Amino acid sequence: MTLLNETHDPALQSWVSSAQAAGSDFPLQNLPFASFRRQGSQEAWRGGVAIGDQIVDLQALAASGSLSGDAQRAAEAGAQETLNALMALGPKAWSALRLALSRGLRVGAAEQAQWQGLLVPQAQAAYNLPARIGDYTDFYTSIHHATNIGKQFRPDNPLLPNYQWVPIGYHGRSSSIVVSGTSFKRPVGQTKAPDAAVPTVKASARMDIELEMGIFVGQSNALGEPVSISEAEDHVFGLCLLNDWSARDIQPWEYQPLGPFLSKNFASTLSPWVVTLEALAPYRVAFARPEGDPQPLPYMDSAHNREAGAFDIALAVDLQTSKMRAAGEKAVQITQSNYRHAYWTVAQLVAHHTINGCNLQPGDLLGTGTLSGPSLDQAAALIELTVGGKQPLTLPNGETRTWLEDGDAVVLRGWCERPGAARIGFGICEGQMLPARTL
Amino acid sequence: MTLLNETHDPALQSWVSSAQAAGSDFPLQNLPFASFRRQGSQEAWRGGVAIGDQIVDLQALAASGSLSGDAQRAAEAGAQETLNALMALGPKAWSALRLALSRGLRVGAAEQAQWQGLLVPQAQAAYNLPARIGDYTDFYTSIHHATNIGKQFRPDNPLLPNYQWVPIGYHGRSSSIVVSGTSFKRPVGQTKAPDAAVPTVKASARMDIELEMGIFVGQSNALGEPVSISEAEDHVFGLCLLNDWSARDIQPWEYQPLGPFLSKNFASTLSPWVVTLEALAPYRVAFARPEGDPQPLPYMDSAHNREAGAFDIALAVDLQTSKMRAAGEKAVQITQSNYRHAYWTVAQLVAHHTINGCNLQPGDLLGTGTLSGPSLDQAAALIELTVGGKQPLTLPNGETRTWLEDGDAVVLRGWCERPGAARIGFGICEGQMLPARTL
Repeated sequence: MTLLNETHDPALQSWVSSAQAAGSDFPLQNLPFASFRRQGSQEAWRGGVAIGDQIVDLQALAASGSLSGDAQRAAEAGAQETLNALMALGPKAWSALRLALSRGLRVGAAEQAQWQGLLVPQAQAAYNLPARIGDYTDFYTSIHHATNIGKQFRPDNPLLPNYQWVPIGYHGRSSSIVVSGTSFKRPVGQTKAPDAAVPTVKASARMDIELEMGIFVGQSNALGEPVSISEAEDHVFGLCLLNDWSARDIQPWEYQPLGPFLSKNFASTLSPWVVTLEALAPYRVAFARPEGDPQPLPYMDSAHNREAGAFDIALAVDLQTSKMRAAGEKAVQITQSNYRHAYWTVAQLVAHHTINGCNLQPGDLLGTGTLSGPSLDQAAALIELTVGGKQPLTLPNGETRTWLEDGDAVVLRGWCERPGAARIGFGICEGQMLPARTL
Repeated sequence: MTLLNETHDPALQSWVSSAQAAGSDFPLQNLPFASFRRQGSQEAWRGGVAIGDQIVDLQALAASGSLSGDAQRAAEAGAQETLNALMALGPKAWSALRLALSRGLRVGAAEQAQWQGLLVPQAQAAYNLPARIGDYTDFYTSIHHATNIGKQFRPDNPLLPNYQWVPIGYHGRSSSIVVSGTSFKRPVGQTKAPDAAVPTVKASARMDIELEMGIFVGQSNALGEPVSISEAEDHVFGLCLLNDWSARDIQPWEYQPLGPFLSKNFASTLSPWVVTLEALAPYRVAFARPEGDPQPLPYMDSAHNREAGAFDIALAVDLQTSKMRAAGEKAVQITQSNYRHAYWTVAQLVAHHTINGCNLQPGDLLGTGTLSGPSLDQAAALIELTVGGKQPLTLPNGETRTWLEDGDAVVLRGWCERPGAARIGFGICEGQMLPARTL
């Protein structure tokens, strides 16, 4: 459980002046982590921390001799190609590095002269996935998404009986997770129309997005040893944005009885920046079940989880079509939601995932599932926004979209703001769908 | 497509005389790979090749100066901690190393004097997982298993309509895959009896095995680039044994709508030895669909696949209870099956998995799913053998088993034999279930 401390003070300002720019995702109160190097270079990938429009190079920081103790140990771990070693260290080390960064980057810090040489402009950076992701688990934590989808398949019984008891989740594919900015081809696969005698193999005609958050596991638990809900957050490094692209015509034909497979594992896009749980502390909110719903079983319940287990994170999806790009038009927002609507908290996902002894490892990724909010304009996938493809969206330039079209680029955004706290953001998670390969 | 060559000659004998022992799994015609070191040592894990009751140490072989070209390159890759680098090289290098090993280990080989110093007795070896498994996909390739399980849930409609068209598969958990000889605790989880109002959290009371084969991916395909069925086998390094332990009371409550999760991911046991496709060449058999069944779609069909896409591999499951162990009694066989009964071939699984562009990476693991044969005594899981727990098995010592009990050890075995070819085997895949943790 992370409490507020000096690093959260909204009055803090950095000598990196862009950190104070209006609407910046990366003020001094955020300090998220990524793996980066200079664009076009053959430099080693290494960890970095965002401040304004700059990146503190953790390899250079670790070599600078300006840190000591846990903070130095964390910077050395963060200097590696991926953040796995840093993630493995646990919250004491993460917190020590955050505090040292916060102090050294503040206006008036003695470190300013030395640390100015450790900065790389974000405009010059290329990003790697933050971690080598061993296992990726995708959950289904929005009861609104589950209900909206369920209505399309089972109008009289949209929500399955286990939903309010079990945080439904399944294993996803790690190898095809790509970092923001990577394009992918429209996938090909088997589909079968309800009235067709046999399936056909073709490019998916029902390509969708899923607006999710990604949760990076920090320190591991041993195989056979569950993580209790009171310890669960100590095993979480931070959160990022995740677009779980989905082929809605491949999915219904393949998913019985073992779940989605090729409809999902052609590409999933992750934002480069991981915002730590400590940075999110000012945006914790109470987690409460709607009146009359079952309460979580004891292994997924705690006073802390009830009082502050959820996170108030605003989320949005922007779409830019090829036509908009050609006309020089920016992406337009097609939906917005908030992570606070989730039916299960981060801590509950960790406690549930490990109740059987399953071992989570540093760099493992948990997806929240599609984070649709309670109203239809907060739906976080096209299948909901267009009611199963029956009500196309009309874009400001007059184009319509039922499903994604070739060349469409989708940008996920996430941010936190409230009076009395510094606004922090997640950067962007962007991907473009290219035409399918020639069949 | 691997043809027979001099390494398959059944007359070949090795100067390691135990390779000729009756019933040996590891004659000169096999030459499977594992990752090993001496028991109780802190030596580096490295690759080894089984010959009789010995292991050829690939680290020592690579340093010996006795190989060259592709064979040397493969030995150097195989000298690493896991076999991933060797797997990545592809069939030309694998084949060159196999040929060099076959020639150097033959009776009369000039290498004998030098290579005797490269051997480590299997009796002194500890094993690692053969590879760092990035992603693990479990398929469902036995139509007999799918039908048997389906009958228990849907007596009138046991086989779902997609089964004969789509090689059904789902993502499994990599982190909890353990090597043969590793014990695990009975898992705890949510279960709900059909007549109960609410679920309860308890140790699983319906613990089961699943007799499967594991398929190790060799060389990778790039994201977005499918592997055609004609190239599919070039992307497969070899086969091993896999026990996909399952908690049958956790499974039905959690698996709708996204598939099995905590009922499976507490432990999966893998045999240490990986038998290459080349070693299995004499045991290829025709792949044919039953009369009247749909033929595979073109992307999963080829002349080679029809003529020789399946493998004739005998499989068996042995059980040893605590009582048998205390009485000094050996494990008893409770079922046997054969991989040739699978409804989809190795090549079809690879072609299907990548049809959407999903990238397979060296060391990725595909499970075949439970390999039940056509008759009930060839069922490859207790849920089938005991007809959903209704017909307990009676063991020779008078004990009965509906599901596994604490202390039960299960051993999977696999081997190939036919007139005119050398018998080869997979070694064993063994695991013991310990009592659940205290709740």
